[in-house]
Amino acid sequence: MADINLRKARSIIRKTLEKGSEMELKPLSVVVLDAGGHVIAFEREDGASPGRFAIAQGKAYGAVMLGMAGKAQMARAEQQAYFMDAMNGLFGGQVVPVPGGLLVRDKKGAIIGAVGVTGDTSDNDAEAGLAGIAGAGLEGEA
Amino acid sequence: MADINLRKARSIIRKTLEKGSEMELKPLSVVVLDAGGHVIAFEREDGASPGRFAIAQGKAYGAVMLGMAGKAQMARAEQQAYFMDAMNGLFGGQVVPVPGGLLVRDKKGAIIGAVGVTGDTSDNDAEAGLAGIAGAGLEGEA
Amino acid sequence: MADINLRKARSIIRKTLEKGSEMELKPLSVVVLDAGGHVIAFEREDGASPGRFAIAQGKAYGAVMLGMAGKAQMARAEQQAYFMDAMNGLFGGQVVPVPGGLLVRDKKGAIIGAVGVTGDTSDNDAEAGLAGIAGAGLEGEA
Amino acid sequence: MADINLRKARSIIRKTLEKGSEMELKPLSVVVLDAGGHVIAFEREDGASPGRFAIAQGKAYGAVMLGMAGKAQMARAEQQAYFMDAMNGLFGGQVVPVPGGLLVRDKKGAIIGAVGVTGDTSDNDAEAGLAGIAGAGLEGEA
Repeated sequence: MADINLRKARSIIRKTLEKGSEMELKPLSVVVLDAGGHVIAFEREDGASPGRFAIAQGKAYGAVMLGMAGKAQMARAEQQAYFMDAMNGLFGGQVVPVPGGLLVRDKKGAIIGAVGVTGDTSDNDAEAGLAGIAGAGLEGEA
Repeated sequence: MADINLRKARSIIRKTLEKGSEMELKPLSVVVLDAGGHVIAFEREDGASPGRFAIAQGKAYGAVMLGMAGKAQMARAEQQAYFMDAMNGLFGGQVVPVPGGLLVRDKKGAIIGAVGVTGDTSDNDAEAGLAGIAGAGLEGEA
Repeated sequence: MADINLRKARSIIRKTLEKGSEMELKPLSVVVLDAGGHVIAFEREDGASPGRFAIAQGKAYGAVMLGMAGKAQMARAEQQAYFMDAMNGLFGGQVVPVPGGLLVRDKKGAIIGAVGVTGDTSDNDAEAGLAGIAGAGLEGEA
Repeated sequence: MADINLRKARSIIRKTLEKGSEMELKPLSVVVLDAGGHVIAFEREDGASPGRFAIAQGKAYGAVMLGMAGKAQMARAEQQAYFMDAMNGLFGGQVVPVPGGLLVRDKKGAIIGAVGVTGDTSDNDAEAGLAGIAGAGLEGEA
């Protein structure tokens, strides 16, 4: 399994922020986690609210722990809110079931990490994150 | 970015309590947080229930962490309850998504802190808090 | 049992800060709790570090929960560190066994609340707090 | 009070990693927090163990919450272990009282944030962090 190294993680963040700027989104915060859910890199743009690390990390952490990206998590939360509540309890409150939590896959489809984006609407967060992952030459799933 | 100093925080609390008294509200409790969500000052009026610090702080803390005042949080909770549940998990249960959590902004619109008011109805709490922030010469958002 | 009302709590805080200023201490933070360990009032002076609410509250909360002021707690911690660790576990980490956690007693010696002071050395914190309690016409124990 | 913006935070991290490389240290992880203890940016070098975010953040978070850098925290822990245990309880386990937690000050000496460095010996971590803060044109305290 190829890992996301620091160089790749920086590239994902930089490309996500560039996309956010191009889309004229509010200040974004972006985290990149490895396949074990541990933080490789994070950046919060000036003007973002102070709690953005926790939100970005929760979006990405839930994605990698459940093997399910934000859109699929949201669909599940809308059908079975108590299930996502239970996941939240299991993972210490670090699951945020909305778009903006993205899985990163290698060529064979194996999950090698996750990206969490927060700051604008959930859909815009996800769009910027997908562009960031693609910009780093990897395949993302929103 | 101008901070809220202790003198301003005292003024916000005193003016909020005066407004509550003028509106004949139940005993109020008022907290003032800085831009990082840390307590500058708090007062609980005689006759208020003992848990009021936590409620006031949760209203204000959620506002500053999310960059979203109580009314916007309540709207989001009504649309997507599981999202506000997730925020609560992330921030250790310290998010209370109802009116009475108010953002304080400087002249340029930057968030410089938050005020949490609790004791009467959420809408009355918010009205008293807005008056308190204005009375201290600052701009509030309910 | 006479309670500490908000007027008395304000007076304790104001007198403690005046004493600190007179002793030329670093910026102080002062909390007043009721006999159930719940916050009545708190103030943090400009320039104090952001974590001071938690420290002041922990000093006072441990004092009221254990019925033992900061100096007695410190003596116990020095003899039996594991005992104070256990108390910390029981009370959710909110016990700080050093001077600056003061009990407030009524005329008959009953505990009616506690004061937590932090910002300078523990001994100076305690001295300022004792002066503040006395200045409000109550009897303190450091 | 001047804040640390994202550009400055990136610069602190890049310069700290360069210094670590120059000193031939093991892979480092570096976090930059704002004056309220909230994450602005973080990077973990390839080969570092997965728990490094928590360690870096604990070093920096304790420094900013207590207004005391790692070396002063370590001295206090050596004199009064139960005091630093109590601080850990208060701040949810996020206090790591060893060198590598550095305060960042503005021209007037006010604390504007903190840096946490981990990966090599605590003293080497601190030395790399001081170089990183200086390299970004700010004043650090180890």
